[in-house]
Amino acid sequence: MTSTACIVPSPLEMAMEHLIDVFGQYSQKDQMKQTLNKQQLRKLMDEQLTTLMQHHNNQKAIDNVFKDLDFDGDGLVAFEEFLSLVAGLTKSCNDRLLIKEHKRLTSQTKQ
Amino acid sequence: MTSTACIVPSPLEMAMEHLIDVFGQYSQKDQMKQTLNKQQLRKLMDEQLTTLMQHHNNQKAIDNVFKDLDFDGDGLVAFEEFLSLVAGLTKSCNDRLLIKEHKRLTSQTKQ
Repeated sequence: MTSTACIVPSPLEMAMEHLIDVFGQYSQKDQMKQTLNKQQLRKLMDEQLTTLMQHHNNQKAIDNVFKDLDFDGDGLVAFEEFLSLVAGLTKSCNDRLLIKEHKRLTSQTKQ
Repeated sequence: MTSTACIVPSPLEMAMEHLIDVFGQYSQKDQMKQTLNKQQLRKLMDEQLTTLMQHHNNQKAIDNVFKDLDFDGDGLVAFEEFLSLVAGLTKSCNDRLLIKEHKRLTSQTKQ
């Protein structure tokens, strides 16, 4: 019995796999082009970013996100444009965590 | 017994959490600034990108990555600079998957 070395992906590799799988799940493929139209982006955000969408769940917000993401103006969002959405959201989440932690530490030093 | 609604993060939210956690694990915090120096970036890449690093495991490659990432030239990699590394790597993985699938489909139609 040949032992197949089971390579466990690291958390970073898992994150990259999730990003590829999620985009693949909602996008359409045409030859080598893989894109999201506005309805597909809306569905992705509704289903994959539920917490965020509770606070920003209006069509105008989605229109603005779509316009910002569609760098080349072809009416479609490509993978790298989707990744810039994820990077922006992740950065703002991280910034909020840093502020929270900074406030916690400063209030501790005052006690 | 109060039932705490257990919110299961979506795959995309998990990916975002992994990115924040991984950067937090290897970076240092100074007040509100969270950064990686070159040794920390090397450690992160060695431990979190093992598959990739098997093919690019030389100091010169790391130096080039660090130089490319350090947009503001402060000798440190900030979170958004790290996210651009992840975006670039994820895009090239996705491109390779698209090419593989395109070849598979074209060879099927020829049979």
